[in-house]
Amino acid sequence: MDTKKNFNDKETTIQELKDIIKKFVVEREWTEYHTPKNLSMSIAIEAAELMEKFQFVTSEESFEIAQKHKQEVAHELVDVLGYVLNFANACNIDLSSYCVEKITLNEKKYPIEVAKGSYGKYTKIGANARKK
Amino acid sequence: MDTKKNFNDKETTIQELKDIIKKFVVEREWTEYHTPKNLSMSIAIEAAELMEKFQFVTSEESFEIAQKHKQEVAHELVDVLGYVLNFANACNIDLSSYCVEKITLNEKKYPIEVAKGSYGKYTKIGANARKK
Amino acid sequence: MDTKKNFNDKETTIQELKDIIKKFVVEREWTEYHTPKNLSMSIAIEAAELMEKFQFVTSEESFEIAQKHKQEVAHELVDVLGYVLNFANACNIDLSSYCVEKITLNEKKYPIEVAKGSYGKYTKIGANARKK
Amino acid sequence: MDTKKNFNDKETTIQELKDIIKKFVVEREWTEYHTPKNLSMSIAIEAAELMEKFQFVTSEESFEIAQKHKQEVAHELVDVLGYVLNFANACNIDLSSYCVEKITLNEKKYPIEVAKGSYGKYTKIGANARKK
Repeated sequence: MDTKKNFNDKETTIQELKDIIKKFVVEREWTEYHTPKNLSMSIAIEAAELMEKFQFVTSEESFEIAQKHKQEVAHELVDVLGYVLNFANACNIDLSSYCVEKITLNEKKYPIEVAKGSYGKYTKIGANARKK
Repeated sequence: MDTKKNFNDKETTIQELKDIIKKFVVEREWTEYHTPKNLSMSIAIEAAELMEKFQFVTSEESFEIAQKHKQEVAHELVDVLGYVLNFANACNIDLSSYCVEKITLNEKKYPIEVAKGSYGKYTKIGANARKK
Repeated sequence: MDTKKNFNDKETTIQELKDIIKKFVVEREWTEYHTPKNLSMSIAIEAAELMEKFQFVTSEESFEIAQKHKQEVAHELVDVLGYVLNFANACNIDLSSYCVEKITLNEKKYPIEVAKGSYGKYTKIGANARKK
Repeated sequence: MDTKKNFNDKETTIQELKDIIKKFVVEREWTEYHTPKNLSMSIAIEAAELMEKFQFVTSEESFEIAQKHKQEVAHELVDVLGYVLNFANACNIDLSSYCVEKITLNEKKYPIEVAKGSYGKYTKIGANARKK
């Protein structure tokens, strides 16, 4: 990988990350294992590994863990991202356009004035629950 | 959202997507629910919803589903991505730099000549299994 | 644990397994960590560890893995079961009665003649799909 | 199903639940979809649905939800259990014996005096962390 370039979120496009991960996979001839079914499992598996970091702590303590063990937590997070990019590569999905499309739908589904501070939609139990 | 702009992976930076999703969350005052613990659960939940599309089909059939129902599948995928971005926002994680850092580590962990075509590392059973 | 007794599915009640796992948790003073939220995470994490065994193999190959590595696979499976039992203990849930209640509901939801051989309900895409 | 019989954890054996779920699956000719790979996905998917109930609440609030919506929560829990039983049926796994075997291993791995009140083993970060 071109380690001379400094990668950061402000200057890196989604396509650049997609290309980096694609090269990694193609070089190892792993493409054939990257079916949508398998990759959806991979995303879920990596998500569980991230979750494991916070399994028996409170939500407050989870911030401490994320701070103290930032690199370890970030590596688990980018493992999820990596498989999301692999999935997008395998299925020719433009993440940016679909991401914006989905958020636009969510803006209508959760109008600001109704959704404000409510976590009702989240729990799917007690849809009218309001923040205490 | 600025719907005039056309978003696509070639021109969209990670930071732009992060900012779009942050605005959505802040406007609804949902930030306080976005703890690392909760967001790790959200990522896993959305990952499972993606996986559900491919639950009882073969890997080959999963490509058909991803093609025929591309928008639906893409929306599930960007739901995962959205929470990855939320997690990165909540914990101040630069995804691009950690992603590249992790892939660089993986390049060493899985040297091309050893890893080529092998799925041994994946299953974690039979680490020396080779492609048939 | 009373290792003199031979445990097997034909002679072991759900309550016996619940009691065994409860004793293990209470002795270690882990009860306070066993909230429904935390235990739901634990179940998902253990489920992902089971899934990891079959991540990049075909469905057919997954039977070979389950056979060749039966103990390892079984241990992952009972890790899931263990947390299901912990959850039931924490929330005072009678698994047998709810299990039978849910299956009775499913019998109505998926009448034999309609559901036979169809995996439509599974994928939730193409609800009328029939086995080829 | 024999609805005359009252099922409860004290009187119901694992085998009885296995048989009930097997009959349900066989009658619908769903056995062929029940490969270890697919069933591991199903367990993870159902686990995520349970988790979704507690996604944005505190651990304390999760007890309230589990109490107020006991039937709904219990149905999600037995959905997980159902697929665990299906997996055991598909792979001929005796859950009781492996469950006891695994707990016996865990008793050695987490000796009471060392493990007491510690959640270190859980987070896998800070293995020596002690309860405050």
